[in-house]
Amino acid sequence: MTVIDVHTHMYPPAYMSLLRSRKNIPYVCSFPDDPSAGDRLVILPAEDTASTSRGRPIGPEYFDVNEKLTFMRNHGIDVSVISLANPWLDWLPSSEAAKVARTVNDDVERMCMEHEGKLYAFGTLPLSAPVEQVTAEIRRLAGLKHHRGIVMGTSGLGSGLDDPALDPIYAAIEENEQLIFLHPHYGLPTSVYGQRASDYGHVLPLALGFPLETTIAVTRMLLSGVWDRHPKLQVLLAHSGGTLPFLAGRIESCIAHDAHLKKEGKLHNRRDVWDVLKNNIYLDAVIYGDVGLKAAVEASGADRLMFGTDHPFFPPLGEGEDEWLSVQLNTQAVHSAFGDDQKAADAIMGSNAKRVLRLPD
Amino acid sequence: MTVIDVHTHMYPPAYMSLLRSRKNIPYVCSFPDDPSAGDRLVILPAEDTASTSRGRPIGPEYFDVNEKLTFMRNHGIDVSVISLANPWLDWLPSSEAAKVARTVNDDVERMCMEHEGKLYAFGTLPLSAPVEQVTAEIRRLAGLKHHRGIVMGTSGLGSGLDDPALDPIYAAIEENEQLIFLHPHYGLPTSVYGQRASDYGHVLPLALGFPLETTIAVTRMLLSGVWDRHPKLQVLLAHSGGTLPFLAGRIESCIAHDAHLKKEGKLHNRRDVWDVLKNNIYLDAVIYGDVGLKAAVEASGADRLMFGTDHPFFPPLGEGEDEWLSVQLNTQAVHSAFGDDQKAADAIMGSNAKRVLRLPD
Repeated sequence: MTVIDVHTHMYPPAYMSLLRSRKNIPYVCSFPDDPSAGDRLVILPAEDTASTSRGRPIGPEYFDVNEKLTFMRNHGIDVSVISLANPWLDWLPSSEAAKVARTVNDDVERMCMEHEGKLYAFGTLPLSAPVEQVTAEIRRLAGLKHHRGIVMGTSGLGSGLDDPALDPIYAAIEENEQLIFLHPHYGLPTSVYGQRASDYGHVLPLALGFPLETTIAVTRMLLSGVWDRHPKLQVLLAHSGGTLPFLAGRIESCIAHDAHLKKEGKLHNRRDVWDVLKNNIYLDAVIYGDVGLKAAVEASGADRLMFGTDHPFFPPLGEGEDEWLSVQLNTQAVHSAFGDDQKAADAIMGSNAKRVLRLPD
Repeated sequence: MTVIDVHTHMYPPAYMSLLRSRKNIPYVCSFPDDPSAGDRLVILPAEDTASTSRGRPIGPEYFDVNEKLTFMRNHGIDVSVISLANPWLDWLPSSEAAKVARTVNDDVERMCMEHEGKLYAFGTLPLSAPVEQVTAEIRRLAGLKHHRGIVMGTSGLGSGLDDPALDPIYAAIEENEQLIFLHPHYGLPTSVYGQRASDYGHVLPLALGFPLETTIAVTRMLLSGVWDRHPKLQVLLAHSGGTLPFLAGRIESCIAHDAHLKKEGKLHNRRDVWDVLKNNIYLDAVIYGDVGLKAAVEASGADRLMFGTDHPFFPPLGEGEDEWLSVQLNTQAVHSAFGDDQKAADAIMGSNAKRVLRLPD
C-alpha cells in the first residue's frame, strides 16, 4: 500500500522571508529580549495580541524540508502533496503578487525536484493580481513537473468564491485540468464564540471556524452556479468538506423550499449538491474519526476520499513525541471505517490520490 | 408503528397576541392598505426590511391547532410534541417574563388537554426573569400533565449556554428529569454569507446558519464542563445536532492538542464528546437525507434519534399540496438508512420518543 498525504503544508524559504519582514497579519515575529519565547507565527486576528505568546510557535517543521521527510518516515507516508499554508498570497499588493507567486511556486518545485518521487505540490495563485496574470500562472503551473493543482482560500478575489469575476480563473483551471484544493483560513467572526472563548484555547476557531467557513464557501459556489458554468471543475475540500456531507440534505431541502429561488426560475435545470458531491468534489480524510469519514464516503464515494494529515499543525503537546495523535486519529478512522474492505482503505490511503493526481507508480 | 414528531412548532394564541402588539423583532405585522400582503412574521434581523414582503407569511398553520392536526393526519403522525417556535421568550423584559411564560405554557397545556393523546409539549422558560422565577417555572412545568421538557435557544441568560450562571437552572432541569430541546434561532452574522447572499433567498441562513449556531452552542457547553457538573442533564439537539456528529472527531482532536487547555490542567478527568453524545444527547432526525442520519446514528446510537418535521416551517411552494416535501425527505431518510432494520426505523419514527418522553401506549 502506498500512503499519500494530500493535506500537508509548508512555508518555503521565499515565503518565510516575506513573513519575517512584516509587522501585520500574516507575520512571523521574534523577541530578541526574550529568546525563550522563540519565533511566533500570527495568522488569525484573534491571535494577534501584544504578548510574547501571541500566535503559535513556528519552528523548522514549517519550513525545513528535512522535517517534512522525517515526519513522513515516522508515519509511513510515502508521498506528500505539499501546499503553502494559509494565508497564501491573498494579502499581497496587486503589483507584487504575480512575481511573488512565481518565486514561491518555483521554490516549492525546487524542493520537490530535490526529493524526486517523495514530494509533489499544489501551487498558489496571485489572486490580487490582474486576471490575465492569474491565468498565466495557472498555465505555468500546469507545466511544472511536480505541481498537481492549486491551493485556494475562500476569499477568492476578495468577496468569496461565488464571485462571477472568478469565471475566467475557474475556466483556466478547468481547461488546464488542475484540481483546486479549497482550504479555509478566515474562520468566523469571533463574536460567535462568546465571551468565554479564550477559556477554551484555540479549540472553537480551529475545530469549528475552519470547517464552517469551508461549508459556507462551497455552498455559495453551488448556489451561484459555479458547477453549472464549469461542469468539469474539480475541487478537493479540506477537512472532509467542512460539514458539507452532513448538511447536504438540509441544503437541498432549503433550496427546494425557497420561494425566492422559485420565483427567479432557479429551481429547474440546476445541478444539485448530491450530483456535485459525486462528480466535482473530492474530500480529504482529515476528519479524526470514523463517524465523519463514513458520512464523507457516503456522500462522495470511496473513490473520492484522500488521506491527509494537516502537518505541521496539531503537533504533540509533549516533548520528543515522534508519533502525532492527530495523524493517528486520521489513520485509525480509515482502518476503523473500512477494516473489512482493504480495497476501500487502500483507495483512501493512497490509490485515489495516485489516480486523481496522476502520480507515477 | 407509532409515529411521533418531536420537532414541531406552534405559536399559541397568547403568544400571537403579544407578537401582533409589537413593532420590533419579533413581531407580526399586517398591511391594512395592501391586504394581499397578508400577515407577516419577522424573526430574523436580515428579514426586517421596510417592504410588505418582509419576513415570511404567517397563517393559521402557525397558531391554529386544527391545522396541526390536519398536517399530522396528512403525514401519518400519531403524536406531536409541540414547542413554541423561536424566538420564545428570550426577549421579554425581566419583570414580565415569568407571568408571560406561565400564560403561554398554560395555553399550550390547554391545547394538549383538548386533544388528549395527540399532543404533548416542551415548555418555555422565562430566562430573562430572576433565577428563582425560572427554577419555579421548571418545577411547575414538571407537574403539568402534557409537558415533557423545555425548549431553549442558544443565548441562555444572554451570553450563551456556557454561562456558569445557568448552573442552578441546569440543576433544576436535571433534578426534575426534564429534557432540554435545544433549538437555534440567532444564526450567524450576515457578513459570513457575503455580498451575494440575497440572490440565494433564505437558503444560507436557514440551511447553514441554524445548524452551525447549534454546533457552536453545544461545543461551548461541552468545553465549559456543563456535563461534568450535570452528568445526568439530557439535551435533545435540533437538526440532528447541527453538525456535531460530523465534527465530533475534529473537536476531540483540537481539545487533545490544545496547549492552553493542557496548561490549565483541563485535559484530564473530562468527559469527551463521544461520551456525551452517547449518554446526554438525543438528536432529532430533521436532517433531510440518509447520509447525515446515518452519521447521527453512528454518533449517538439508534436509540437516541427521534423523528421530527419542523412544521410549520418549510411548507410546499405550490398551492394546495397536502404532502410536504420537507417531511417526505425526513421520512424517506429513515427508511432509506434502515430499510433492512425495521426495529431501528420504528425506534427513530416513534418508540424512542415514547420511552424517553414517557408517553402512554
